[in-house]
Amino acid sequence: MNPTERLGYTQSTKLLIIHADDFGLAQSENAATIMALEQGSVNSSSIMVPCAWFPESAAYSKAQPAADLGIHLTLTSEWTYYRWRPVLPAHEVPSLVDEQGFLHDSVEKLSRYATLPDIEKELRAQIERGKQFGIAPTHLDSHMFGLVAKPEFLTVYLKLGREFGLPLLLNRDFILRTAGYDIRPYITDQYLLVDYLYSAEPQDYEAGMISFYTKTLQNLQPGLSVVLLHPAYNNAEMQAITVDHPYWAADWRQYDVDFFTSPACQKILEEQQIQLITWREIRDKLSTET
Amino acid sequence: MNPTERLGYTQSTKLLIIHADDFGLAQSENAATIMALEQGSVNSSSIMVPCAWFPESAAYSKAQPAADLGIHLTLTSEWTYYRWRPVLPAHEVPSLVDEQGFLHDSVEKLSRYATLPDIEKELRAQIERGKQFGIAPTHLDSHMFGLVAKPEFLTVYLKLGREFGLPLLLNRDFILRTAGYDIRPYITDQYLLVDYLYSAEPQDYEAGMISFYTKTLQNLQPGLSVVLLHPAYNNAEMQAITVDHPYWAADWRQYDVDFFTSPACQKILEEQQIQLITWREIRDKLSTET
Repeated sequence: MNPTERLGYTQSTKLLIIHADDFGLAQSENAATIMALEQGSVNSSSIMVPCAWFPESAAYSKAQPAADLGIHLTLTSEWTYYRWRPVLPAHEVPSLVDEQGFLHDSVEKLSRYATLPDIEKELRAQIERGKQFGIAPTHLDSHMFGLVAKPEFLTVYLKLGREFGLPLLLNRDFILRTAGYDIRPYITDQYLLVDYLYSAEPQDYEAGMISFYTKTLQNLQPGLSVVLLHPAYNNAEMQAITVDHPYWAADWRQYDVDFFTSPACQKILEEQQIQLITWREIRDKLSTET
Repeated sequence: MNPTERLGYTQSTKLLIIHADDFGLAQSENAATIMALEQGSVNSSSIMVPCAWFPESAAYSKAQPAADLGIHLTLTSEWTYYRWRPVLPAHEVPSLVDEQGFLHDSVEKLSRYATLPDIEKELRAQIERGKQFGIAPTHLDSHMFGLVAKPEFLTVYLKLGREFGLPLLLNRDFILRTAGYDIRPYITDQYLLVDYLYSAEPQDYEAGMISFYTKTLQNLQPGLSVVLLHPAYNNAEMQAITVDHPYWAADWRQYDVDFFTSPACQKILEEQQIQLITWREIRDKLSTET
């Protein structure tokens, strides 16, 4: 059964999650994410537990229990001057940290050095810490797709989803294209694959973000789709975090805010008869399957 | 011998350190501190190692080795939604952390719960981490004066200064007034007491910060004085950090920037024949005493 029918919709339904990644990363990210959830078309987000601004995102989650918020499982600390450590002490997860005790700054290093027991311990601690702060997560996903970078990592991701009873962001084509392997053999009936995953990449930024998002929504196909964005304001804090990084930087994130809080976006969603769905709805429907 | 003569100046010299606390706290604090050091009258600062923006302040220290930068020994994490953990794992310094693993949010809690071995271990780790990041500290001081809150804590502060060969910010009147004890009995000849310590307090803020700083400089007495300030821009990041805190908040810190980068401040320093001195000069002079 395809995902839309499994979720109780007709096969021709264009189901979409508009998802803000990186909630908790920074104050700029938090303020823009909350604005995009409350005043824009964004209907889901996930929280980075190890970051300094995590408590602000957790407080939002407690204050707005109906918001669709998951845990953005985080194994990389990728910026230059604004870094974070794992939730666990570095000596308990030595394969996850650099010589300064921060999480590795790239998925490449993560793939090279991280051991499965360390990954599992740290991510379990992130989920538990999220719950300690009052988050009742609706889903799990993986910062920078670190957890799907290779099949061994994927098995940890699948295990955590199963154990915590939470849906996972998983898309076959995206992983095949970026990580080079087919996830099908690892996926049993209890998991749900997203049919289409959209996330702007450097060439989309170069060609124009508004154009990329407009075309993405205008051409959305029937099935379950996810658009990932990273809303933040293009301010001093975000510019300093993303310094020396041409992509996913402060201006990129401002485009995400601008498009997904625009009347133009709302209009396309209506014109294309796109049906928004949350991870909460997916979680609850999957949990009642016999 | 009084401090001015000990440092090689005449007794009538008005020696002054204009010191920016909290470097490393936040991006706003970093940007404003750097600006005030480079374009204002601020001539010294100290860095908070446990904070998320510490790497940016450490990078500045490496790039500007002549800057007069110390370690702002930090035992409290006093804001609401932007918190930090100790440098050491929480389980190694259990008396320093709250139930969420962050440093206590007040000096009162620090005084009540912190043990001397935990304080010493953590602060030693902060100094070592500062050095690992390339900081060659010129002095040590204590965030929120936590380390002088009671005589037992003071003994750790004195020990660290001695061991690392670094001058400490110490002022008898300030500690007598705020912590209620006389530090004289603890102070041997190897330490240098600051004659006058000025740091705006809530009543100064209510009466007007510019007026407070103007009067402070206009009435400066001969001797060794220190003015402490907390420069940061009154922007979204700083407003979110200091939310629910009426004092030492974003607007307070903007006043600090405004005054100490003003031509008016520079003019008073000249008119009053105030001689600026750095902690580096003090460190180097004390270290050559026989």
